[in-house]
Amino acid sequence: MSRALVYQTDFGIADGAVSAMYGVALKVDPELNIFDLTHDIPQYNIWEASYRLVQTVQYWPEGTVFVSVVDPGVGTARRSVVAKTTGGQYVVTPDNGTLTHIKKMLGIAEVRLLDESKNRLSGSELSYTFHGRDVYAYTGARIASGQQAFEAVGESLDPATLVELHHVDAVKNGDVLEGTIDVLDIRFGSLWSNISHELFSSLGIDYGKRVEVSIRNDTREVYRNTMVYAHSFAEVSMGEPLVYINSLLCVAVAINQGSFAGAYNIGTGTSWKITLRKAPRIVYE
Amino acid sequence: MSRALVYQTDFGIADGAVSAMYGVALKVDPELNIFDLTHDIPQYNIWEASYRLVQTVQYWPEGTVFVSVVDPGVGTARRSVVAKTTGGQYVVTPDNGTLTHIKKMLGIAEVRLLDESKNRLSGSELSYTFHGRDVYAYTGARIASGQQAFEAVGESLDPATLVELHHVDAVKNGDVLEGTIDVLDIRFGSLWSNISHELFSSLGIDYGKRVEVSIRNDTREVYRNTMVYAHSFAEVSMGEPLVYINSLLCVAVAINQGSFAGAYNIGTGTSWKITLRKAPRIVYE
Amino acid sequence: MSRALVYQTDFGIADGAVSAMYGVALKVDPELNIFDLTHDIPQYNIWEASYRLVQTVQYWPEGTVFVSVVDPGVGTARRSVVAKTTGGQYVVTPDNGTLTHIKKMLGIAEVRLLDESKNRLSGSELSYTFHGRDVYAYTGARIASGQQAFEAVGESLDPATLVELHHVDAVKNGDVLEGTIDVLDIRFGSLWSNISHELFSSLGIDYGKRVEVSIRNDTREVYRNTMVYAHSFAEVSMGEPLVYINSLLCVAVAINQGSFAGAYNIGTGTSWKITLRKAPRIVYE
Repeated sequence: MSRALVYQTDFGIADGAVSAMYGVALKVDPELNIFDLTHDIPQYNIWEASYRLVQTVQYWPEGTVFVSVVDPGVGTARRSVVAKTTGGQYVVTPDNGTLTHIKKMLGIAEVRLLDESKNRLSGSELSYTFHGRDVYAYTGARIASGQQAFEAVGESLDPATLVELHHVDAVKNGDVLEGTIDVLDIRFGSLWSNISHELFSSLGIDYGKRVEVSIRNDTREVYRNTMVYAHSFAEVSMGEPLVYINSLLCVAVAINQGSFAGAYNIGTGTSWKITLRKAPRIVYE
Repeated sequence: MSRALVYQTDFGIADGAVSAMYGVALKVDPELNIFDLTHDIPQYNIWEASYRLVQTVQYWPEGTVFVSVVDPGVGTARRSVVAKTTGGQYVVTPDNGTLTHIKKMLGIAEVRLLDESKNRLSGSELSYTFHGRDVYAYTGARIASGQQAFEAVGESLDPATLVELHHVDAVKNGDVLEGTIDVLDIRFGSLWSNISHELFSSLGIDYGKRVEVSIRNDTREVYRNTMVYAHSFAEVSMGEPLVYINSLLCVAVAINQGSFAGAYNIGTGTSWKITLRKAPRIVYE
Repeated sequence: MSRALVYQTDFGIADGAVSAMYGVALKVDPELNIFDLTHDIPQYNIWEASYRLVQTVQYWPEGTVFVSVVDPGVGTARRSVVAKTTGGQYVVTPDNGTLTHIKKMLGIAEVRLLDESKNRLSGSELSYTFHGRDVYAYTGARIASGQQAFEAVGESLDPATLVELHHVDAVKNGDVLEGTIDVLDIRFGSLWSNISHELFSSLGIDYGKRVEVSIRNDTREVYRNTMVYAHSFAEVSMGEPLVYINSLLCVAVAINQGSFAGAYNIGTGTSWKITLRKAPRIVYE
């Protein structure tokens, strides 16, 4: 039985690019099962491609082959690689930082160089701008179908040599946790931080108690207030903010049936800092 | 052979949420055939989720398992259920009104309580906000693959106890039909009413004859004019309005190659009333 | 083994229309493999539907059945047809110009009339507006599953009788190439012209040399400047324009990590002309 093949790109689905990638894979093996992670990664946004992979890879069966194509350097000397995660999934991708979060949060068991001149759709030699179709979909399909062994894709590389995007670990300073806002839960406008459930637990805040949340962009404080730590949205009033543990078991901030990111114009990346502490008691004298 | 599994959510497809739901199902059974109804239900809009189900369920094979996750009450005491339609399709969903239109227009043969503590992805106990992945996709996949019998999902419930959204039946008063605008044909801006083809036929208006259409939002009249009753758009001039019978055999109103909803800022729901009558003769004296 | 079935429409995926088309096909044969080209063709835009087909059809296996439904004339006397390309793929579509680019760029081996009254979902006789579900998806599924032979779909037609959209061939006048801007690479804002790689080669411009590009809309010149002819985007500076050969081996114009179409408000169609010539030497005296 062939393994699942999963595509992620920044191509959108309004033109024929993704469909051509499907066709190429089905010419390799018409029985392949092909799926989409998303094709709405913002153009050239390698960080978000990296995050969406770590959000999903572990929920797919061992042996699943991901093809991720956010590739501003297509046609240059940037390497192409195939990585095997510690969970046994494969990722075919340009080596441009797309593996940053998987390496940090899940772990990479092995990585191999993908030789673009050998692993390439025949007849595509004059096309220099669509490696998604000509190299990555073609190679991913051959690995998923069993026609190309991972071990024979190219030479083994030291995972330490992979390109990594700049990222910052969450830290605890006294009673205060500081992390970054890594990504949004797009449709609902929630902020997903890099502060783990374990680290948050060290503050000793029980469900139903209040947390003081501060959000800064570089040196500007964008938000500071206290809110309830809740299991889920509907435990607070409609329109009320909350702190919760998201589906990746990290700290997140939302407004029940509203958009926190929209309400305060909050973005993502390492310049967006979030700090958490137990809310102070307020005493009138 | 496993049965088709069909997902509907308000999650969008720009992040990894839907893909994680696919992965979970394929871990249950890698041979499952998974499809999408839509993931663009407006956030928290249970009414539209209910309508999109009734628009599609009957066109899928008997035994198809739908998983519909528009779930503003995730994490609260709201029930989860699995319903079997009179056509033999299954719907796994929170009991929050999502089954309103199916119950009214197609009929529910049987409904069972879904015990979230028993029907849950192992290891997901700390995640309180993503039942789409942890409970509904997992359970839907188990039913579709035959690993979980519908009859053993949980206790049988009286369909009369299902949560229903407020809705109003279309009525005939003398020569006038009054109904509501249930939903839009989004891309084309057409209004889909709850007035059935049978009820409309009782007005005795032939194809090519004119209908007087009035649209009100609460007490405000938004539109009143006469238009042709046509088989399809191209029977009228470009830019001309028409009344037609839509693909669910209800009365609809459109502008040929324009957007009726956009032209007059018309919305949907029980506060949006539409009345139809045979157009009067206009006599100059 | 059944052949792949691929859908293209202008319906969007925010409502249940496409999903109903999937269900109808799976009722014909539950083992069918169904895929999407795109459902984001701008409403009624037959030109773009035609282009997206030529962009993808040839990358799919022989025998693949495409169903393309951009059908402003639904319900009128316009013909429905099934075409077989010279590459052996099938296209089920209204005869309204959707086959223009395939006929011109790939070639049509044979075309047959689709009799809508015989090739129709039973019970759909009262529905006049959704041939995508009732006629085209149903017929495409029957062909893909082998239940309906292409040869028995209806009488053979002369491909010369197919409706064709107005289009203009690229030409060479002395040292100047003139073509049209056929379509955009939507997400990246690149202009895709109808000037082939072969024709462009006749200018004798090497990679790394400069091209003078002029763009006119009717009589108004919208853009004129010189830019580098590069293999791919990353060979020029960020924000710099370039001429390149796109994935269909035609001349394209882009801005590296920007949007050329957005920067200069450039559209598509035969009124949008592009001319290319070797850039002049600039001599200061």
